[in-house]
Amino acid sequence: MLFDVFTLFPEVFPAYLETSILKRAKENDLLEVRLHDIRDWATDKHRTTDDTPYGGGGGMVMKPEPIFKAVEEVIGIPPSCPLILLTPQGQTLTQQKAEELSELPHLAVICGRYEGFDERIRQHLVSEEISIGDYVLSGGELPALILIEAVTRLIPGALGDPEGAFDDSFSCGLLEYPQYTRPPAFRGWEVPEILQSGDHGAIDRWRRNQALLRTLQKRPDLLFKADLSDADLDYLEQAVQESETAASDPIINLIKKRKE
Amino acid sequence: MLFDVFTLFPEVFPAYLETSILKRAKENDLLEVRLHDIRDWATDKHRTTDDTPYGGGGGMVMKPEPIFKAVEEVIGIPPSCPLILLTPQGQTLTQQKAEELSELPHLAVICGRYEGFDERIRQHLVSEEISIGDYVLSGGELPALILIEAVTRLIPGALGDPEGAFDDSFSCGLLEYPQYTRPPAFRGWEVPEILQSGDHGAIDRWRRNQALLRTLQKRPDLLFKADLSDADLDYLEQAVQESETAASDPIINLIKKRKE
Repeated sequence: MLFDVFTLFPEVFPAYLETSILKRAKENDLLEVRLHDIRDWATDKHRTTDDTPYGGGGGMVMKPEPIFKAVEEVIGIPPSCPLILLTPQGQTLTQQKAEELSELPHLAVICGRYEGFDERIRQHLVSEEISIGDYVLSGGELPALILIEAVTRLIPGALGDPEGAFDDSFSCGLLEYPQYTRPPAFRGWEVPEILQSGDHGAIDRWRRNQALLRTLQKRPDLLFKADLSDADLDYLEQAVQESETAASDPIINLIKKRKE
Repeated sequence: MLFDVFTLFPEVFPAYLETSILKRAKENDLLEVRLHDIRDWATDKHRTTDDTPYGGGGGMVMKPEPIFKAVEEVIGIPPSCPLILLTPQGQTLTQQKAEELSELPHLAVICGRYEGFDERIRQHLVSEEISIGDYVLSGGELPALILIEAVTRLIPGALGDPEGAFDDSFSCGLLEYPQYTRPPAFRGWEVPEILQSGDHGAIDRWRRNQALLRTLQKRPDLLFKADLSDADLDYLEQAVQESETAASDPIINLIKKRKE
């Protein structure tokens, strides 16, 4: 998969791209990241890429010309791949979105100052806007790395362990079950017996139930989109009856509806 | 503000910390980031920090001992500051949460492999769990940088421009209005006349309305938590009447309720 990244800070990327899974993906020819300094397409001697906003107010705004020129020179007119603007205004990134993007051979992303892009970049250049969450950052560089990592680890072969990508939180629509490793007792806190039982059917069911319970307690909103089996619904029904959470009513309705 | 970061990959942090706003904040003594390599608290000669999970399954799990030891040595027992675990299981980071955290003098964060922490770390060591979004990453390093940046830019004095932090998307509960800079016409696409009018009252109202309209169209969920004036409600009422979006009914109810 090829990423073209347009940024004012290309120097912040290599350290992370040379680490762990992304490094391996690059070594195995599963990932290539080309970094483009938007400043290289500025035309004045100060290499200016921003200017004050029309109408006044604080902050600077990214100028349209250097970004249009950079994008057009690197990925062509019309662009040869989807072009994503990383901005808090975009569609919020989800695991499902990362899965969709991981099937593409080529993606381009524009990172900028969040104080603002000239609106014409948004209207006439990019194909899509993505946000990584409802908080304010100073630039799109960390969001670009987040996107590259979330997408790359879904490319077949990118993780050493083929099961790894499918067992995590969100990838099955639920939060992950509790994990334990050695020692079996640490400061008096013990690993649950069932995980030491060797009964894999019972372990799978326990893990699934723990994932359901944790999602019910911490992120009940996720249950509305999750794939739930009859056994899942039975377990949830019982868990809801035994607890009294604020989310009970909508969840009870959800369970009833799914059971019909 | 002091951040203590516990990680297996301290080398990925400096490039970003030496850039832009974070660099300035450090130079102005508003920010200090101490990086701690969890591996330094491993006790065997291979400096092992993970192990296979009890109960089988893919991936490796972060062991409890090195993390407990690292945290206790650096921030004491009980910890001298809130200790945040960056994990998809946590409370989702919001701008409001970043604002709360920005008032603290000292925070510690643990980054790990997302394949799993030993549950005892979650139960008996950390004070809080935070997620940056509903997608799967390979580690907590990017989330830690996101948290550091989102929080640092809210520290008084960290942004050159004192207004910058308050005008952005989310900081007033709405998406940001469109921004334009020179040239006034680019490839035939013109800057809206009102922004060139010099009438600041009219510009402020136009911007507020554009922020409302954009939020209505792209993220109507944000309106339910936003501070809305009577003029805002009037504008939204009109905008809803003129469009026909799926969100109309709940939004109409919201407007009615707020107007009461």
